[in-house]
Amino acid sequence: MTHQPAITQLSALLGDRLVTSQADRDLHGQNESYHPTLLPDAVAYPETTQEVSEIVKICAAEGCPITPFGAGSSLEGQHLASQGGISLDMGRMNKLLAVNDEDLNAVVQPGLTRVELNEELRATGLFFPLDPGANASLGGMAATRASGTTAVRYGTMADCVLALEAVMADGTIIRTGSQARKSSTGYDLTHLLIGSEGTLGIITELTLRLHGIPEAASAATCRFESVEDAVNCVILTIQSGLPMARIELIDEAMVRGFNIYSDAGLPEKPHLFLEFHGSPAAVAEQAALFGDIAEEFGAAGFQRAEKTEDRNKLWSMRHNAHPANKALAPSKGIISTDVCVPISKLAEAIVEAQDKARDMGLSCAIVGHVGDGNYHCGLNVDTSDAEEMKRAKEFVGLLNDSALRLGGTVSGEHGIGLGKTSYMHAEHGPALTYMRAIKAAFDPKGILNPGKILPALNH
Amino acid sequence: MTHQPAITQLSALLGDRLVTSQADRDLHGQNESYHPTLLPDAVAYPETTQEVSEIVKICAAEGCPITPFGAGSSLEGQHLASQGGISLDMGRMNKLLAVNDEDLNAVVQPGLTRVELNEELRATGLFFPLDPGANASLGGMAATRASGTTAVRYGTMADCVLALEAVMADGTIIRTGSQARKSSTGYDLTHLLIGSEGTLGIITELTLRLHGIPEAASAATCRFESVEDAVNCVILTIQSGLPMARIELIDEAMVRGFNIYSDAGLPEKPHLFLEFHGSPAAVAEQAALFGDIAEEFGAAGFQRAEKTEDRNKLWSMRHNAHPANKALAPSKGIISTDVCVPISKLAEAIVEAQDKARDMGLSCAIVGHVGDGNYHCGLNVDTSDAEEMKRAKEFVGLLNDSALRLGGTVSGEHGIGLGKTSYMHAEHGPALTYMRAIKAAFDPKGILNPGKILPALNH
Ligand SMILES: Cc1cc2nc3c(=O)[nH]c(=O)nc-3n(C[C@H](O)[C@H](O)[C@H](O)COP(=O)(O)OP(=O)(O)OC[C@H]3O[C@@H](n4cnc5c(N)ncnc54)[C@H](O)[C@@H]3O)c2cc1C
Ligand SMILES: Cc1cc2nc3c(=O)[nH]c(=O)nc-3n(C[C@H](O)[C@H](O)[C@H](O)COP(=O)(O)OP(=O)(O)OC[C@H]3O[C@@H](n4cnc5c(N)ncnc54)[C@H](O)[C@@H]3O)c2cc1C
Repeated sequence: MTHQPAITQLSALLGDRLVTSQADRDLHGQNESYHPTLLPDAVAYPETTQEVSEIVKICAAEGCPITPFGAGSSLEGQHLASQGGISLDMGRMNKLLAVNDEDLNAVVQPGLTRVELNEELRATGLFFPLDPGANASLGGMAATRASGTTAVRYGTMADCVLALEAVMADGTIIRTGSQARKSSTGYDLTHLLIGSEGTLGIITELTLRLHGIPEAASAATCRFESVEDAVNCVILTIQSGLPMARIELIDEAMVRGFNIYSDAGLPEKPHLFLEFHGSPAAVAEQAALFGDIAEEFGAAGFQRAEKTEDRNKLWSMRHNAHPANKALAPSKGIISTDVCVPISKLAEAIVEAQDKARDMGLSCAIVGHVGDGNYHCGLNVDTSDAEEMKRAKEFVGLLNDSALRLGGTVSGEHGIGLGKTSYMHAEHGPALTYMRAIKAAFDPKGILNPGKILPALNH
Repeated sequence: MTHQPAITQLSALLGDRLVTSQADRDLHGQNESYHPTLLPDAVAYPETTQEVSEIVKICAAEGCPITPFGAGSSLEGQHLASQGGISLDMGRMNKLLAVNDEDLNAVVQPGLTRVELNEELRATGLFFPLDPGANASLGGMAATRASGTTAVRYGTMADCVLALEAVMADGTIIRTGSQARKSSTGYDLTHLLIGSEGTLGIITELTLRLHGIPEAASAATCRFESVEDAVNCVILTIQSGLPMARIELIDEAMVRGFNIYSDAGLPEKPHLFLEFHGSPAAVAEQAALFGDIAEEFGAAGFQRAEKTEDRNKLWSMRHNAHPANKALAPSKGIISTDVCVPISKLAEAIVEAQDKARDMGLSCAIVGHVGDGNYHCGLNVDTSDAEEMKRAKEFVGLLNDSALRLGGTVSGEHGIGLGKTSYMHAEHGPALTYMRAIKAAFDPKGILNPGKILPALNH
């Protein structure tokens, strides 16, 4: 084991919270996506910020890589210790430290998950809106700049984090931001750490914006004759300024998956899943306005879900899109894509993606946070079939190229990790040099999650 | 002149768009605030991004400082060439390059002002909401992370910019962000440049989020018996989740200023100025809900402004707070403060500020973007009276310390410039080291607006 000197010292520091068992390493080396398993040499379970700092100091002295680990749900291999070293599992730092209900924020440790946070908030009348399909950790969500179905209304993690505490590559503990709602005092380190995938610092505390649970909430589904009609309905809805809380596309293939996995019983046509938040009058008004727009595009089969349990059922079906996608071809794996395009280009982009997948003989199901122009093509691929993998990767390449050509981005919310480093230059051009400069300045020894985000220099 | 070699080359490049006349240098060396005049050696007027890049290359080779200049309205000396060199006046790069109405964004050059942008947008049904009191340039607003009366609803410049083009310290032209509404691809250089006050790069193009002009808008004013009642009304309004478009505090002293300067005819009591945006029904509902809350705090004298011209009159009175403040003591200057505190601490903070000013014998008028916890104490000070200046600075120090103690920030929107560098360590602690590291990595020769934001190392 190459990192034995660090591991020996970490063992002395952490006792049985430094684990080298095969089982634990396996657990931290897996991913929900198509990346091969990549094992860390050991897993560390810190309990305090101070401990994280001491771990980092040891690893810095020994040149041992550290890959932070939240819930391990990231889809581009972000949490995999691809150069070995330590997987830093933040799961024991999972406390809700404070709810400042008067200021509509909460202070949490990074290992707390989004579902746990909302359970703990239940009595307060407040909630944290962002909901990636997985029950991700809030630290991991910040580190990947995650979003989900509600970002169209409440923004992404870039909008929902007020302040951070982080341990930097030499063990220094810093605080960024404040409890104030805005500030103009110097460089925005909060936003710099958000989306940095553990490569610039380890997040040890987050102050998150909360929202009052809306007085009224109403969900609905409806279907369209074509995916183009569905998407054009979304485009007009967003352009009209309707404050949708959720507006999700489920294409005909994904509806089939929902029918298999969740017994949805939906006609196999493209659907929109919607939610409205506000006062009872505002919700009624929004729903009526949406209905008018949808009618123009031939929407049919409106079904409402008003009661909390019915809405929860609807959204848990949506959150199960990943297994539903898998249910279309249970023996195969899933390669998920994540482009995001300007909303005006959305119909063009989605239709092109469906056609392309068909032409290439790939099984592709689409769900999308379409209010943001973000959609995922889930490809059912036999990851051991080199030829099919090649076709799938070619499809992903074409999709990413097309997103960039349309003025968009290769990742709306999943991030770069190992999987998309080769698109960084195409998307960012000369700006990439300044990302490298930040990495070099913040982590000169390159111990924080090496190999992620930034492509190797010859790319 | 120490920077003659650079100036000679810049003259050759720009011809009569490189100006060394006393008049032009004076104009660029002034400020609306209490900072002494500081003259650049020359003023450059670029017309294209390519020209900015060539200017920077010359200055980099010659070690000549470059201070970008938008509208020169910043209040902490940000636009002053405090170490001489070139004032880079972006005023001729003032075109609206594109309105992407389907995507609710506009692409602009940095010298375009917020008022000009909205005039150009008039026919589109869209608008750009942010409104610092001055008619600032959009580049300057991004560079200072500006906000204004509407940030409570529409966010600050940190929320309103989708993408940037910038010229970096060696002349490299980069693009950050995209036309997509969100992205998770690498380090967030857009947010890093926003608020960097021209010290990391020169913004040469901005893509700005626009909003549909609300179907209905209604403004109102009301008064309270005490500033505490007014602020407590604001706190409850925000906590209730009412989507206020504007909610501004004008304290009794500032009301006197409005009466003098704008002939407002208002009783000399603390007032709130409000605005509601939405559908006609939503606006009516919001106004009614606000009315209920305000009643609890003894609000009286409600006056509505519904017609566009009446609303404009109201908000132009508010935007003239600076001259109105000055009208309280026309022979004196104004020192403006800009703290922002968690909303739960707002009443405490404002009452303390009023008491402290009274105790210290200072004339102080307060306006505040109180929905964000941000307020300005405008001190009428004879800037040539050393003793009064000393007292004023002591007051500012106490106010800033108290904001930090309450979990807030020393600047909600005006920024750091020259005026607040000495608070950077108190606010950011060890994080300051990482701001310095970014500056050193991006601008190793220190030619971009030297002396701003970061305190000298012995601070
Ligand atoms: C079924 C399914 C559905 C999904 N749906 C969505 C979706 O709708 N929207 C979306 O945005 N994502 C989605 N994802 C992706 C994933 O849930 C997100 O990327 C999530 O933010 C990852 O959080 P995590 O806690 O699992 O982090 P991990 O996977 O453990 O780590 C992710 C990255 O963050 C770093 N990291 C973790 N914790 C910290 C920390 N404390 N400090 C610094 N760095 C840290 C890791 O090193 C790694 O680089 C989905 C994933 C699955 C499996
Ligand atoms: C009466 C009055 C009221 C005000 N009210 C508010 C308010 O409500 N809210 C608020 O936020 N501010 C307010 N301000 C402050 C001021 O208007 C803002 O700071 C504004 O953003 C400055 O813009 P500007 O174009 O005048 O920039 P300047 O003052 O010219 O420059 C500001 C800073 O930005 C840099 N800069 C300018 N252009 C660029 C560029 N293209 N690229 C890189 N750097 C650049 C400059 O170098 C400087 O550091 C007010 C000022 C006045 C005088």
